[in-house]
Amino acid sequence: MQDLFIYKRQIQFGDTDAVGIVYTVRFFDYCMEAIDAWQREYLDIDWFDMVDKRRIGTPMVKIDMSMTGPLARGKAHITLLITRVGKSSVIYQLHGRDEDGNDCFLANFTYCLTDCTYFKPIPIPAYFRPIMEDYHQLSLASNEII
Amino acid sequence: MQDLFIYKRQIQFGDTDAVGIVYTVRFFDYCMEAIDAWQREYLDIDWFDMVDKRRIGTPMVKIDMSMTGPLARGKAHITLLITRVGKSSVIYQLHGRDEDGNDCFLANFTYCLTDCTYFKPIPIPAYFRPIMEDYHQLSLASNEII
Amino acid sequence: MQDLFIYKRQIQFGDTDAVGIVYTVRFFDYCMEAIDAWQREYLDIDWFDMVDKRRIGTPMVKIDMSMTGPLARGKAHITLLITRVGKSSVIYQLHGRDEDGNDCFLANFTYCLTDCTYFKPIPIPAYFRPIMEDYHQLSLASNEII
Amino acid sequence: MQDLFIYKRQIQFGDTDAVGIVYTVRFFDYCMEAIDAWQREYLDIDWFDMVDKRRIGTPMVKIDMSMTGPLARGKAHITLLITRVGKSSVIYQLHGRDEDGNDCFLANFTYCLTDCTYFKPIPIPAYFRPIMEDYHQLSLASNEII
Repeated sequence: MQDLFIYKRQIQFGDTDAVGIVYTVRFFDYCMEAIDAWQREYLDIDWFDMVDKRRIGTPMVKIDMSMTGPLARGKAHITLLITRVGKSSVIYQLHGRDEDGNDCFLANFTYCLTDCTYFKPIPIPAYFRPIMEDYHQLSLASNEII
Repeated sequence: MQDLFIYKRQIQFGDTDAVGIVYTVRFFDYCMEAIDAWQREYLDIDWFDMVDKRRIGTPMVKIDMSMTGPLARGKAHITLLITRVGKSSVIYQLHGRDEDGNDCFLANFTYCLTDCTYFKPIPIPAYFRPIMEDYHQLSLASNEII
Repeated sequence: MQDLFIYKRQIQFGDTDAVGIVYTVRFFDYCMEAIDAWQREYLDIDWFDMVDKRRIGTPMVKIDMSMTGPLARGKAHITLLITRVGKSSVIYQLHGRDEDGNDCFLANFTYCLTDCTYFKPIPIPAYFRPIMEDYHQLSLASNEII
Repeated sequence: MQDLFIYKRQIQFGDTDAVGIVYTVRFFDYCMEAIDAWQREYLDIDWFDMVDKRRIGTPMVKIDMSMTGPLARGKAHITLLITRVGKSSVIYQLHGRDEDGNDCFLANFTYCLTDCTYFKPIPIPAYFRPIMEDYHQLSLASNEII
């Protein structure tokens, strides 16, 4: 079986706060980067081209995150799953761990594809949908979804 | 009746993304700043002194946010409410609007007070609790809570 | 004599690094904010409107900074001076201090006004120039310039 | 001859500003990351361990940067050179280019090694110096230094 996508992100010195651990808000940056990295690898497109070439807007409409442990050094390992592929929206689930496999956060990012002119939801384009659905099946089969 | 606390945050040019609106993750930065600003005004303490002087850790344990509209220019107006004061935890609710009063986001930040040595939850200190509970009552009376 | 403009910036918990002081790169964010704040107050325009309404691009072309002391808590006080008003360019000098007046950094930001279509330098517009030149005179008279 | 170190940095959607190009201050973040990446590869240490394990402080004391072109999409390619190895200080020079090889910025970062207790300059440790000097020779031989 194909492996789930794991985004490995070097923790930068400036990502931490005065307590010496990664500042909570940086987790959200890491997740956005992970989603963009997945889209570049699987959909062969980044957020810039979504807007510039496809004229697709991709606003986040809902985000939730539970923080389950501190993250301090080395690389964050962020496993990406797709838990839902709707008509216009996709839900990415992101499991953040440190290099030793300790849980740091669990998040769900719901985003909606829109046209860039009227900002109305549009159906997920045909060249994205099967890839997203395949990855959704892979995610379901992985027993990683929470 | 006392007014709810509103944190007014100048939107910086670097806060926006290539679409020209505030990048979603910056909303979380704005909320953290709003909570810190409230704590400085109401509890007379900032996060640095929480750690340095009181030896209190304040990890966020859960965050959720719904994005309800774009935010682009001027000042973000973030209304802060307290929706729950628990034994060790507090839930802040944050309503983000643009200068014209249009809704941009609605978020809940749950954080937990801990000791800085063993990272175990501690009861909310006596010098914070009544202030938080008063503000919780004010929040309830405001009809703003969602 | 009119006072020099001082931008007072609350240091956020996430601005610091694992050593517990403000991460060097944040100084540059603070300076950009200070310049924008000065322009809003003196020129009655922010960077968004420069681009959107005036069709003026404002790329930084040169920045230098000396770090002279750590910055850790409270508000950064950033004094803004204008050290040169050229045909198309302006040099802002920024003196960063902590709340007790200790020096933290000294920086020069040179930026160039351009048209937004061809990215060529344009003369500083007539509605900005006298204000900039007055402030330049004020800066010279202040004995603060280094 | 050994190649110069090039740090390739994915440009994130949130790194750009309302004009759609990378916000100037992000260049400084990229450079700090490049220096840290070089140190991890060549000195086998990151900034966290510098402080935690070696008790070495590494404050930047001077930074200058010329911006020579916009950076918008794809990966930034940042070539790192060492232009000087002093008693306590090192000067890193960083050449930023876009994926097509167009110049974006040229920067010099001077940093000073200090002890973490008294913040006084210390001689560059013996286990770092020869590596830095070798890389300095490589930089000189590269004809890349400006």
